Order: sequence, then C-alpha cells, then structure tokens
Amino acid sequence: MRLRNKPWADDFLREEDQIVVQAPFAQKGSWKHLFSHPDQPLHLEIGSGKGQFIAGMGVQHPEVNFIGIEFVKSVIVGAVKKVKDAETENVRMVNENAKDLTDLFENNEVDHIYLNFSDPWPKSKHEKRRLTFHTFLSQYEAVLKEEGRVTLKTDNKGLFEYSLVSFSEYGMILEDVSVDLHADEDPLNVPTEYEEKFSAKGQPIYRCTARFTT
Amino acid sequence: MRLRNKPWADDFLREEDQIVVQAPFAQKGSWKHLFSHPDQPLHLEIGSGKGQFIAGMGVQHPEVNFIGIEFVKSVIVGAVKKVKDAETENVRMVNENAKDLTDLFENNEVDHIYLNFSDPWPKSKHEKRRLTFHTFLSQYEAVLKEEGRVTLKTDNKGLFEYSLVSFSEYGMILEDVSVDLHADEDPLNVPTEYEEKFSAKGQPIYRCTARFTT
Repeated sequence: MRLRNKPWADDFLREEDQIVVQAPFAQKGSWKHLFSHPDQPLHLEIGSGKGQFIAGMGVQHPEVNFIGIEFVKSVIVGAVKKVKDAETENVRMVNENAKDLTDLFENNEVDHIYLNFSDPWPKSKHEKRRLTFHTFLSQYEAVLKEEGRVTLKTDNKGLFEYSLVSFSEYGMILEDVSVDLHADEDPLNVPTEYEEKFSAKGQPIYRCTARFTT
Repeated sequence: MRLRNKPWADDFLREEDQIVVQAPFAQKGSWKHLFSHPDQPLHLEIGSGKGQFIAGMGVQHPEVNFIGIEFVKSVIVGAVKKVKDAETENVRMVNENAKDLTDLFENNEVDHIYLNFSDPWPKSKHEKRRLTFHTFLSQYEAVLKEEGRVTLKTDNKGLFEYSLVSFSEYGMILEDVSVDLHADEDPLNVPTEYEEKFSAKGQPIYRCTARFTT
C-alpha cells in the first residue's frame, strides 16, 4: 500500500541511523557487523510494510539478527517507529528495492528470507513481478546459505498456488505448508498488520517454507 | 466408509464381469487388452468409493481407459452400478487392496493416478497408511510412465498439507495446486460423492497434481 509521500520522511530516516541502514550497498558481505551479536543467524524480510512482523520477530527471537527491506519511504517510516518502540537491538531497516538483492547481499550471507503478503500481481503479464517468480528465486538461492529457507505467508489464493508450483518447478523442496494458518493456532506466529485484518474477516492465511536443494 | 457387508455382493461382482475384473493379478502388464481401445492412456483411481468420479470421468473422457480400485466389497458394488448406468465402455473396476499396486501393474503401465478423498489417517502413528506416504509414492513411481502424474483431491487440511510436503520431499514436482477448487469453477472437475457433500457445507476442496522427476 502506497501512502502519500511524507516530506519529513527523508529527515526522519536519516536521523534514525541506529535502525535505518544509511549506505546499504556498502554493507554487502558484512551485514553481521551492524549487530551487537554478529554471529547470530541473519533473517531478511522483503517488503516489511508497517513493520509489525519484523518488530515482533525481533522481540520474539533475540538469538537472530533481522533486516527488513521496504521500498516505499512513507511506509518504512512506520516500520522504523515500530522497531524503535519495541526497544529491540537486533533489527535493522533498509529503504531499497528488493530487486537488487544480489547487490545488497553477498552469496551465502543470509539464513532465512520472509515474504509476507507480497503484491500478488494477479495478471499473467505481471508474473515477472511476483516475488516468487524464478528470477527472484535465483537471487534468493544466491544470497541464502545452503541450509537457508524461504517462508511465504499470504492471504492471496492465486499467489500461494502459483508460488508452491514456482518453488517446486525451480527445484526447491517444500518443508512445511499450512492452508489455514490461524486454524493451526501456532503460538509462535507473528501476524502482520494485513494478516490481522484479513484473518479477522474469516479468510484463511496460507504459509509455506521451502529450501533449495544442495 | 465401510458399509455392512452385503451377502449378495460376491455374486453381483462375479456376474458383472464386463465391468469387474475377475482375476486382476493376471492382468499385470496387459491391462490395456481389457479395453476396446487398448492404446488409449490408462488412468487409475485408488479408492473409488461409490464410483461417481470414475463413472463421470469415463463419460467425460472417452479417449482414456479407466481402472477404479476399491477394496471394500460392499462399497464397490455401488461403483459398479454407477459405471453400468453410465453405459460407458472404458471403465473397469477392481476389488483389491491398493497396497499391492506393483503386483497388479507392470512398471510404466499407467499414465495417471487419482487419489480422491483418501483416508487422512490423522494420527502420526498411522502415517504409513496414508496413500501419500513415501512407500506408496515409490509404488506409484514404478507403475507410472515417465510422463505420468498423480492427482490428489481432498477436503482434509492435514492430509493435503502432509501430501504436498511428502511429494516434494520425495522429489516430485508440483504442477498444479488449488487450495479452493470450487472457487476456481473448473468446468472439467468431476466431483465425488464426498466432495459434493463437503463443498456444500462451504468447506474448501484442495487439489494438486505432481509428477516424478525423470
């Protein structure tokens, strides 16, 4: 969701340099050193939106370092505030486009990638823009470690079905699938803002985790 | 679903020898010769229940030969009647246990296997009985041709999620997934008796098709 651009956003993102990474491309290969515990696993959320997931995960998993990427400036501002309010030291935010993932991360630098409620791009002609299109998968494969995983969570039936097939055709192995996550009552699930809204309407939330074959 | 055994079932199944294969293990390697068009693809349904799917598919696809396997004698009787009423010549029924699949079929003899609303065996200790457990998958792999497919259809969330992972971990490729088949309004879908009942209650029907890697 694109909100109207906020003119003060640039200043805010510069000021919050404890959370917002100021020169992200310069961190390639050395992201770990941004964190007080550099040797913890590095988890990446692509499209963090308003930040409820990444802030919640940061609190729930102090043993992990998190990076949230969000391209829309007026949206990432909200995420940065959430991370700040959570008073957790293991979350950094990046205001960049995820299509440049291999420019941001070195090969084998990341342990886990989360795709939460990504734009479904329902028209066939926009297939290439879906974050589970094979060109994105090859970027994930590059930046992930051998044991790395991708977790997709969505309320969108079409994107979920497409992604299961796309993962599989690419050669990835599905490790975990839920076709109604909230029926599972997973106490460790951290819902996003969208997820809470859609689930409250009684719509199923879908989730799957897949790994690349080694 | 097991109905009470009907004492006349044995006689009925013997009499309907145009539909019911009388010596199924003797057909291994030569099933095609039971059909008036031997060179048509051979599709197999494991657990045909009351036969609405196999009879309907027989009518919808005269270009395919179908075999329905159902172990429960009192249930297969209904399927045989449905096939007879459908007046289609391309469906044969087998009253055997699907666990003996490689004793019934030669390697590379089958083009497609359907698993419709199979028993979910929800308890972990019964995992081995699920028709998508890896020991069954290896039998399917043996009897299917290289381009052969397995299609699973179920209303059971647990069995569906388990099967997607089991297919994938076995090395199969998912080609098609629906997490709400009736929302897709596929005009070619032939519903089973169970499917009509569960879908009428508003419950989603799940379906996926997978192939073995060559």
